[in-house]
Amino acid sequence: MFKILRVNMSDLSVKSEEIPEAYQGLGGRGLTSAIVNKEVEPTCSPIGPNNKLIFAPGLLGGTNCANSGRISVGAKSPLTGTIKESNSGGQAGQYLAKLGIAAIVIEDLPQDGKLHKLFIGKDKYELSPADDLKGLGNYATVDKLKAEFGDKVGFASIGQAGEWKLAAASVAFSDVDVRPTRHAGRGGLGAVMGSKGLKAIIIDPSDGETAPLADKDAFKEAAKRFAKALSEHAVTGQGLPTYGTDVLINIINEAGGLPTRNFRSGRFENADKVGGETLNKITVERKGEPTHGCMTGCIIRCSGIFLDKKGEYVSKWPEYETVWAWGPNCEIDDLDAIARIDRVCDDIGVDTIELGNSVAVAMDGGVKEFGDAAAAEELIAEVAKGTPLGRILGSGAAVVGKAFGVRRVPVVKNQALPAYDPRAVKGVGVTYATSTMGADHTAGYAVATNIMKVGGDVDPLKAEGQVKLSRDLQIATAAIDTCGLCLFVAFPVLDIPDAFVAVVDMVNAKYGLSLTGDDVGALGQRVLTMERDFNTRAGFTPADDRLPEFFKLEKLGPHNEVFDVPDEELDTVFDF
Amino acid sequence: MFKILRVNMSDLSVKSEEIPEAYQGLGGRGLTSAIVNKEVEPTCSPIGPNNKLIFAPGLLGGTNCANSGRISVGAKSPLTGTIKESNSGGQAGQYLAKLGIAAIVIEDLPQDGKLHKLFIGKDKYELSPADDLKGLGNYATVDKLKAEFGDKVGFASIGQAGEWKLAAASVAFSDVDVRPTRHAGRGGLGAVMGSKGLKAIIIDPSDGETAPLADKDAFKEAAKRFAKALSEHAVTGQGLPTYGTDVLINIINEAGGLPTRNFRSGRFENADKVGGETLNKITVERKGEPTHGCMTGCIIRCSGIFLDKKGEYVSKWPEYETVWAWGPNCEIDDLDAIARIDRVCDDIGVDTIELGNSVAVAMDGGVKEFGDAAAAEELIAEVAKGTPLGRILGSGAAVVGKAFGVRRVPVVKNQALPAYDPRAVKGVGVTYATSTMGADHTAGYAVATNIMKVGGDVDPLKAEGQVKLSRDLQIATAAIDTCGLCLFVAFPVLDIPDAFVAVVDMVNAKYGLSLTGDDVGALGQRVLTMERDFNTRAGFTPADDRLPEFFKLEKLGPHNEVFDVPDEELDTVFDF
Repeated sequence: MFKILRVNMSDLSVKSEEIPEAYQGLGGRGLTSAIVNKEVEPTCSPIGPNNKLIFAPGLLGGTNCANSGRISVGAKSPLTGTIKESNSGGQAGQYLAKLGIAAIVIEDLPQDGKLHKLFIGKDKYELSPADDLKGLGNYATVDKLKAEFGDKVGFASIGQAGEWKLAAASVAFSDVDVRPTRHAGRGGLGAVMGSKGLKAIIIDPSDGETAPLADKDAFKEAAKRFAKALSEHAVTGQGLPTYGTDVLINIINEAGGLPTRNFRSGRFENADKVGGETLNKITVERKGEPTHGCMTGCIIRCSGIFLDKKGEYVSKWPEYETVWAWGPNCEIDDLDAIARIDRVCDDIGVDTIELGNSVAVAMDGGVKEFGDAAAAEELIAEVAKGTPLGRILGSGAAVVGKAFGVRRVPVVKNQALPAYDPRAVKGVGVTYATSTMGADHTAGYAVATNIMKVGGDVDPLKAEGQVKLSRDLQIATAAIDTCGLCLFVAFPVLDIPDAFVAVVDMVNAKYGLSLTGDDVGALGQRVLTMERDFNTRAGFTPADDRLPEFFKLEKLGPHNEVFDVPDEELDTVFDF
Repeated sequence: MFKILRVNMSDLSVKSEEIPEAYQGLGGRGLTSAIVNKEVEPTCSPIGPNNKLIFAPGLLGGTNCANSGRISVGAKSPLTGTIKESNSGGQAGQYLAKLGIAAIVIEDLPQDGKLHKLFIGKDKYELSPADDLKGLGNYATVDKLKAEFGDKVGFASIGQAGEWKLAAASVAFSDVDVRPTRHAGRGGLGAVMGSKGLKAIIIDPSDGETAPLADKDAFKEAAKRFAKALSEHAVTGQGLPTYGTDVLINIINEAGGLPTRNFRSGRFENADKVGGETLNKITVERKGEPTHGCMTGCIIRCSGIFLDKKGEYVSKWPEYETVWAWGPNCEIDDLDAIARIDRVCDDIGVDTIELGNSVAVAMDGGVKEFGDAAAAEELIAEVAKGTPLGRILGSGAAVVGKAFGVRRVPVVKNQALPAYDPRAVKGVGVTYATSTMGADHTAGYAVATNIMKVGGDVDPLKAEGQVKLSRDLQIATAAIDTCGLCLFVAFPVLDIPDAFVAVVDMVNAKYGLSLTGDDVGALGQRVLTMERDFNTRAGFTPADDRLPEFFKLEKLGPHNEVFDVPDEELDTVFDF
């Protein structure tokens, strides 16, 4: 049955245990947040001995349910100081679930400061020295590990940024092509892994099994209905497979919500040059793959392969957030440069959103000129080299603002804002302000309803209705993240009633339960409540649930809007 | 009568107004904190348009009371995010008071980003361009201003660090020799001044008058008793005048509380080489001045003049805190190097405590070796040049910890700890943890009672009694800072009952009041309550009133103590 692995980096022991009562019925984000909330002292140092780093596949992980292989990583965040769950695609989620592992909990600090790697196979868990991997990027790390362990395994690893414990460091997960292109990017969890001296985890699913199901037939039937909904919805069935997430560039630009030049405008004149349509076009021209999944079991397949002009592999398709952060927000319109930057970010292991914001804030502070793609590539090279300038950038946008005296720093709880201006997409502004994770679009993606009119229609420019929208989405998202489902399933789930029912049916069929839709909502609320409890004990208050003041002071063109959802309303988001 | 000057940096207006009802009866810290609490939005950007920078002499400023010329500077702090009052010696306090100015309030931001200077004379207030001062250090700034305004005036100015808006930037005040050696160092108030585009204030006391007194004779008599107490107490009458504040090096080292190598030990083997006795000895040998006041009206005169081996002026005597921060805490035992660093810090305008901690944390992170004085001088030169490494250091110890992945970062509310290890001087540990200002020894100097047995005797190594001690001292200090008195008057005030009575008598004689000793205590409580109210609204909670966890986890030699005052007790400090 499923178990929890306890990995102690001080005495280098690995122990497996039954899932304690308190954690039963949880997976993914629900499980990582429960463990952090219960076991981590909220005021501890995020890179000290009392933080814990947790990896957990979702409740539906290890099954044949489409898009159920996300992996959640949790800890107290070095970037925000809050509880953090950052989830990722790639192979790790499915592999761990098939090995019967509900969570890996990495504890304490190494006594000798040396690096280790952790091997996980069928009933075999082993820590071993990894000093030969010291200083390597994720690509070189994975190459070396492939030489040793083959390519039928999954990897989680950190690059140099994680070793340096930079607050923007990510945890990389290898994809279906065994490349380290999928990242738990947000919140600096790579720094926690680095502090623990854990360079990589190797997950060998040999002899693993599809997760046991209480009612196989019911599960199969529900999974089929769920897959059908994913295929039929316009976003998951057509938009994402064809243009990737970068399909959003032109949509959000049109809506006047594409933050440009460090959030100085909501429209970028050259948006189309970096949009999904262009990405698709040049990928087809260069004979790359425009439609590609990031993990086994994905049927959306939004991640293409980006080739350079010579047809050589550069990176996976940069996500919309990445294209935005390094494109419009830095006034850059060169997709090739952005793809190269994406590759470097994946290699050194940093969050592309945080780093792109770092660079935009630095440009706003006069360190480099907006619009200079070569300068942006120089800056990411500074991060890769670990120079003092690179350390500033790699510590996140708030530190950049401090170092260069910039007051227009788009962060909430110290985490940089993603690719939707909260003045033009006010629902996501509520999510940024109030999320337990710092500014995070994935925590309650109100863009869907504000802009794409999925799951209803709430005017993006009006304050009215945004708090309820964000509340409902934050609850639903916490449940989706607990199931290990890709967030994009939310599009059909919001629009097609049976898609949601199918998710509940699958959970029931797997665990032999009889949950209702309300129970799933209650699960989401339970997860948020645990996260809020941790944050409160860590010292967070309503004063932290606010956007930076410049979003209230500066009007955003073309709509000339400020963020005007009242503070008192923000304080009711978690009234449930 | 006394008035408040409102200086608006956006429209470049200067207006004088009567002291509003809400601020009457307040001066110094009491007045700056009242204005910040009432007029500044607690969640605003510290370097944005909604912060205000306030200068205020104390209630006894402008009189012939000994040591009454301190000036308070207040704002929301760029370093801590809390309310901040940082006070300084020098001439500004007395000069402003003699011109009838209770406070200068600097508001808004310049529209053109240019620098200005503010002239204040008898009923004459003028803003004028100061771009010729751009990029200059405080010494060169004061030299240029002296050429224009003569040397019978006082200056407040910022160096490059303030222009760059670094979180460790100070505000410099010229001393009796018209040198910029006295600093409101803590909390980055120089960055606020820089954000306002205000390079310097020139205060011309010509035609100013000694502050009016309601009862001249009573005042004169009380002032005499007060001066007598200052002269008779061993600390203010002998120790400080002879050895400066650096007299503490050997005392605190002996007590095992001298933080060494970034708080790894409480004893420094070469302490004596940087102690006050050595400082006095080499100053006499080099024919410098071992006893020198920093402001008119000072009768303690703890600040000598430091000459180099050739007899050339280097700096004022580095304070104990400075010697410690750059000496024992970096394992450096070279007083000449420390004095040169002190000079550079004064020139670029940075807090020597914060920067010394920045360097010690950087050394702990392997950036340079402990004990390398030349490396420390190189690092302060990086700050002066504004290189990326210098920006990291100048942003304070917490940012250094982020940039270089160091978890042993001695800060509370992001402000670096001063020169007393809280594990060996537990009373000051309570003050560090709970002060409204972040870690600050001056907020409640329990060292006096823990180590010097002034005002009683509370065992420095025991948790018992420290909360009450810190509470009483924090209240008394808020009152002393409101009066504009040098904190060193606390030694006689704590030990000689009549010294305290004399202070109350002087306030009464000046303002025609009949306050009791209890009223002065209530004044201190009122100030602390306003500060706590601001901080609460800014989002601070009991979770912020804690020392970093390594003080609880690592024992400090030679006493092998951890900081063990229980959290629940810390939460009662402000129960009054």
